[in-house]
Amino acid sequence: MKQSEYFIKTSKEISAEETSDNAQLLLRGSFVDKLMAGVYSYLPLGVRVLRKIKNVVREEMEAVGGQEILMPALQPRQLWEETGRWEGMKEVLYRFAGRGGNEFCLAPTHEEAIVDIVRKRVQSYKDLPFALFQIQDKFRNEPRAKSGLLRGREFSMKDLYSFHTDKDDLNKYYELVTQAYLRIYKRLGMEAILVEASGGSFSKEYSHEFQVSTPNGEDSIFHCSCGWAQNKEIAKVKKGDQCPSCKEGTIEIVKGIEVGNIFKLGIKYSKDMNLSFVDQTGKKNFVEMGCYGLGISRVMGAIVEVSHDNNGIIWPKEATPWQVHLLSLGNNPQVRKLGEEVYNLLTKQGIEVLYDDRDESPGLKLKEADLIGIALRLIVSEQNNDLIEFKPRASAEVKKVASKDLVKLIKEFYNV
Amino acid sequence: MKQSEYFIKTSKEISAEETSDNAQLLLRGSFVDKLMAGVYSYLPLGVRVLRKIKNVVREEMEAVGGQEILMPALQPRQLWEETGRWEGMKEVLYRFAGRGGNEFCLAPTHEEAIVDIVRKRVQSYKDLPFALFQIQDKFRNEPRAKSGLLRGREFSMKDLYSFHTDKDDLNKYYELVTQAYLRIYKRLGMEAILVEASGGSFSKEYSHEFQVSTPNGEDSIFHCSCGWAQNKEIAKVKKGDQCPSCKEGTIEIVKGIEVGNIFKLGIKYSKDMNLSFVDQTGKKNFVEMGCYGLGISRVMGAIVEVSHDNNGIIWPKEATPWQVHLLSLGNNPQVRKLGEEVYNLLTKQGIEVLYDDRDESPGLKLKEADLIGIALRLIVSEQNNDLIEFKPRASAEVKKVASKDLVKLIKEFYNV
Repeated sequence: MKQSEYFIKTSKEISAEETSDNAQLLLRGSFVDKLMAGVYSYLPLGVRVLRKIKNVVREEMEAVGGQEILMPALQPRQLWEETGRWEGMKEVLYRFAGRGGNEFCLAPTHEEAIVDIVRKRVQSYKDLPFALFQIQDKFRNEPRAKSGLLRGREFSMKDLYSFHTDKDDLNKYYELVTQAYLRIYKRLGMEAILVEASGGSFSKEYSHEFQVSTPNGEDSIFHCSCGWAQNKEIAKVKKGDQCPSCKEGTIEIVKGIEVGNIFKLGIKYSKDMNLSFVDQTGKKNFVEMGCYGLGISRVMGAIVEVSHDNNGIIWPKEATPWQVHLLSLGNNPQVRKLGEEVYNLLTKQGIEVLYDDRDESPGLKLKEADLIGIALRLIVSEQNNDLIEFKPRASAEVKKVASKDLVKLIKEFYNV
Repeated sequence: MKQSEYFIKTSKEISAEETSDNAQLLLRGSFVDKLMAGVYSYLPLGVRVLRKIKNVVREEMEAVGGQEILMPALQPRQLWEETGRWEGMKEVLYRFAGRGGNEFCLAPTHEEAIVDIVRKRVQSYKDLPFALFQIQDKFRNEPRAKSGLLRGREFSMKDLYSFHTDKDDLNKYYELVTQAYLRIYKRLGMEAILVEASGGSFSKEYSHEFQVSTPNGEDSIFHCSCGWAQNKEIAKVKKGDQCPSCKEGTIEIVKGIEVGNIFKLGIKYSKDMNLSFVDQTGKKNFVEMGCYGLGISRVMGAIVEVSHDNNGIIWPKEATPWQVHLLSLGNNPQVRKLGEEVYNLLTKQGIEVLYDDRDESPGLKLKEADLIGIALRLIVSEQNNDLIEFKPRASAEVKKVASKDLVKLIKEFYNV
């Protein structure tokens, strides 16, 4: 894609109302546009990042046997009455009536909808286990949405639901998903901490949050270097205490951003909505359920929070909007020609290239490239002659390479 | 994917309430689940069809220079006040208030949202022309939604918007998009008729609908074999009249399903929302706009309406949920072994295979395969020995082929 034809307008300054780093950088870098508090449009650069994150999540969900479905946001009151959440969650539900007088809400979560689908289709233990997930836009009635993509009124989520005959099978699958989540964050350039949290009012067991450590995090985590971690709600320790798990380390308080949340629902929803199966002995049982949430747009915001410098965003390889940002500096016709050649060469090889072919000053182009933060920058310029400057956004190291070695080096960089 | 592990439950009968063929077949075939009138979940088979349609549309939009963005459904009242459509469209808008007292609606169309994005970023003629599109879920307050996926309260749409300095440029682009639309329908196995329709209250020019001819269509089109067509709203001819265009043919009435709708908006929204640019002479002008809609879920329903027989759906090659439906018939261990081998062979070659490995009767498996309608069916069975039965869903012709020739034949069939 030639930048001269690309729908992108970066800005030097954004309203100081936007206090979070992710909102500042994503707005300045032309990844998103803000329609109102908590509601964003994704511009061409932002759509590409979102798609890459979705694909990483999709791959890891499919790797643990998840099958993709897509459920609606618009849901009838009757469905939510079945679990008591029409009233119980009314604070965060957008609720309204349609022309026929029917009452609806916009779903912030899909336990009711998925159980309705599954109860029509499961009869016997032979139909179990399985797991279904979706990547879909959710809605939440937030009075004051802030923090950019971290807390939205409309936001993209991946939610996985699993269905089992018994607790053992649920526990095993829960462990599998935990590992899949850790792989997702790692692929997206983040180290997530697995944190014990309350299982909610219907379970004595813990649920788990995945927290990315950052000084700007909204949450406080009690953490030991042995890996033990609990959130503020349930932790019975304080800073400096001995770790209750390893009995050796000392508890520290870490600030984090929650990037995922998984629950053993047990039979809570199955019971409320009569999702049952007949076991091998002919007895009726309720289905054991797990649910596993991961905020796609929130992860996009979290990546920016933990991966930027004073000049802009530093995208990890698997979330970079384009694989290569190719800059042609100056107006020397030979440099222009080399730029075109490199652009055509890489594009033909299936490498994603954003090519800054604009008639702008080198200073502006370099500044914008740092702001946008594509993981790998290439420069053609008079001072480089026939060589191409090769620089990862995440490092200060610059190589000068010949055109003929370029494709190999890029493929090595991206490990493809 | 092994069918024994797939989330699929077909049914022989569906409530007679579902009067449309697409609802009957998509529900019976386990492509969708109905949450309420006009609101469907897509099950694993359905998600795959939806994704294929989206990809065809995305490719053709990118081929005419469209850049993908993603706008929100949740929108503030103030935005819709700017064009007068908060009141003007209130019949079809879901409107409600959030906790902070702010009023919102769910967007059934995105002219307001896109113009807000664009007016912040366009100053000069140098910023024009360009075109932006999204594939996104829309909402429409329908008192009585029926006809399956053809008319929904929540539905998937592709909407493209183009921005130009003048009418000539808009006209040229409009023609390009018209051709792209015709390519999309052709790739999805449908012949669409380009039909003149009213340009609405703000234009003397026609808009255009794309209609797929089918006896069950909701719309009536006045059509001549020369290609001329107008919809009921504007046509000043009747059946049997001489064609006003070629002056030779005779007007027929054709029943159709609308699968797309394109408009020259001109400066209607630019004026209402002050989207202007400075031209080469330094004069301020309003931007000329076009908008181009295509219902993704509606197209999925339309394909089923025009492409099925008494036994089930007949998916076109570019929308088939899987490329191959491999059936293993009977319990002969050698047949089972051949089935596994073929499944592994094709999967390794990157061919999408749904493998019916279940312990069910041949009759049931064949019936279900016809219902689901995957474009190519392969059978291993005792009576075929080492050969594999190769049958396109759309034809009666059956070939018996050796394992070694299979990949080549499948790739030829799909032209990949």
